[in-house]
Amino acid sequence: MIVAGLSPGSKEFAESLASASGFGLIHAEGKVFPDGEVYVRVEGDVEHTVIVVQTMSRPQDTSIIQAMLLADALRGLRARRIILVSPYTAYARQDKRFLPGEPISIAVILRSLYTAGYNEYYTIEIHKEEALSAFPGSAVSIYPYYYMASKAGIGGDHLILAPDIGALRRAERLARSLGAQYDYLVKRRDRVTGEITVEPKHLNVKGRKVVIVDDIISTGGTVSKAARLLLDQGAESVEVLVAHAVLAGNALEKLKGSGVRRVVAGNTLPRVDDPLVEYVDLAPLVSDSLSI
Amino acid sequence: MIVAGLSPGSKEFAESLASASGFGLIHAEGKVFPDGEVYVRVEGDVEHTVIVVQTMSRPQDTSIIQAMLLADALRGLRARRIILVSPYTAYARQDKRFLPGEPISIAVILRSLYTAGYNEYYTIEIHKEEALSAFPGSAVSIYPYYYMASKAGIGGDHLILAPDIGALRRAERLARSLGAQYDYLVKRRDRVTGEITVEPKHLNVKGRKVVIVDDIISTGGTVSKAARLLLDQGAESVEVLVAHAVLAGNALEKLKGSGVRRVVAGNTLPRVDDPLVEYVDLAPLVSDSLSI
Repeated sequence: MIVAGLSPGSKEFAESLASASGFGLIHAEGKVFPDGEVYVRVEGDVEHTVIVVQTMSRPQDTSIIQAMLLADALRGLRARRIILVSPYTAYARQDKRFLPGEPISIAVILRSLYTAGYNEYYTIEIHKEEALSAFPGSAVSIYPYYYMASKAGIGGDHLILAPDIGALRRAERLARSLGAQYDYLVKRRDRVTGEITVEPKHLNVKGRKVVIVDDIISTGGTVSKAARLLLDQGAESVEVLVAHAVLAGNALEKLKGSGVRRVVAGNTLPRVDDPLVEYVDLAPLVSDSLSI
Repeated sequence: MIVAGLSPGSKEFAESLASASGFGLIHAEGKVFPDGEVYVRVEGDVEHTVIVVQTMSRPQDTSIIQAMLLADALRGLRARRIILVSPYTAYARQDKRFLPGEPISIAVILRSLYTAGYNEYYTIEIHKEEALSAFPGSAVSIYPYYYMASKAGIGGDHLILAPDIGALRRAERLARSLGAQYDYLVKRRDRVTGEITVEPKHLNVKGRKVVIVDDIISTGGTVSKAARLLLDQGAESVEVLVAHAVLAGNALEKLKGSGVRRVVAGNTLPRVDDPLVEYVDLAPLVSDSLSI
C-alpha cells in the first residue's frame, strides 16, 4: 500500500503512483503546531509493506523531518518493510567535502532516513548515484530521460547537449538511446573582447533543434546563458530536459528571457503553472522500477 | 572547544558557555542556497572533544538538520567526541504515541542526532526525562529552576504552583529546595453558572505571591487564564517561572493582558525584547553540568 506524504507535490505523485501500480492509497494526516513543530499521523491499519511517497520539496528540512516521522509512525503500526519514494532528493549536490570542514549532507540525510525506519529508498535521478551508498539499505536512482524524451517527442533528429563535461555521460546515454548526436558545452574566452561565451565542443548547432539535458534547474543561470548563445549561433530551437525543476528565485523569468522554447521536467516537485514548463508524470516509471 | 551553531539564539548561548567554562570558541559558518537548502562549514582545526551549541529554535526542522550537518562536518575534521548542547529540545512533547499512527517524534530526532555523529547530548529541562532514553549515547537534561529562582529573587515566601497535577513534581522539587509551599491547579465547574475556573487544590492564594512553574510557555493560553483567576482569588502577584519561553503567536499579549507581573525564562531560545520577560542566562549552569 501507498501512503501519500505531506510535502508539496507528494500527494499528486502518490495518487499517480497508486493508479499506475494498482496499490491502495491512504493519505498521511499532518498539521503544524502554533510553535512551528510539525505533526504527522497515519490513521488506520497498514500492510506489511508500505510505500511512503514524500518528495523533498521546499521547505526541504521539514519535508525530511516529516519523512522521518512517517517512518516511525508506520513502525508503530507494525509495518515491517517501509519503502521511501522521494522523487526529488534534496541536499544531493553536497555529496562530498569540497572544502575541509564541510559535511557530506546527502549522506547525513540518507543515514537519518534509514535510522528513522526506512528499509529501501527510491528516488529519481540523484545528482551522483554514488551518493546513495550512504543509505545502509537498498537504494535506487531511477533514470528518467529516455522516458521523458519519448513522452515529449524528443528523438533522433535532436542534438543532445550536456551543460558541461561533467554531465556528458547523461547526455551520451540519452542520445544513444534516441539515436541522436550529442556533445557538451565548453566556455571560450574571445581573444579580442575577453568576453566569455559557451558553445558545443565538437558540433555546430546551426539549424539544429537543441536539447540541453540536466538533472536540476535551480537558478537557471547557466542554462539561460547557454540558450541565448546557442540561438545566436544559429540553433533552430533550444529546449531543456530536466528531471527536477527546482526553479529557485526568478529562474523562470531568466529562462523565458533566454529564448528557451520549452522546459520538459519531471513531476518530482510541485508544478509551476506556466506554459514554458511541460511536466512528464514519472509515477508510471517509478511503478515499473519498484520491486514489490 | 565550543562550536557556536547557527540557529537563532545559539550564538549568544555559546559565547556565554565559552566564557563560563573557559573553553575556546569558534563559530560555524552557514548560509542558505537560493533553493532553500542550508549549508554549514566549520573552518580550521578542531580538538578531540568538541561541544556544539545549537538550540532547536524556529525553524525547528532547519535547526535540527543544521545540528546533524555540523556533527558530520566535525567528524570529517577528525573530532572524536562530539557533544551537542541543545538548550531547547524541539518535539519533546511528542514523546509517546498518544494515538495509534503517531510517531514518537522526539525519539526520531534524538536517534538522528546520534546517527549524525553526536556521542553525548545535553539539554535543559526536557519535557519528560524518559524521552532521553531514545538517544543511544549519554544524554542529560539539566534541571534549571532552583538556579533560576535564586537569580530572580524567588524564595521561601512564594507559593509555587504547578499548572496541573502532571507537573506537580516539578513544583514540589523547587518548593522543597526553596523551603516554600507548593500546590497544583485544578479545574472546577461552577454548579450554577457552569463556568470552568481553576484554583489551587489545597491552598488559598489570598495575599500570596504566586509563582507558576512550567517547562514551556507556548501559546500562553493556560497560564494566562490561570493568572487572571488567581488574581481574582486575591493573589498579591502572579509570576511565571519557565525554562523555555517559546511564546508562539500572540502569547506575549495574552500574558500581559492576564496581569502576570513577570515571566522568568531561561535563555534557551532567542530573546524576546519585552520588559515582561526576564531572562536568566543558563550557560553557567550548563558549564557546571558538563563532564569534560
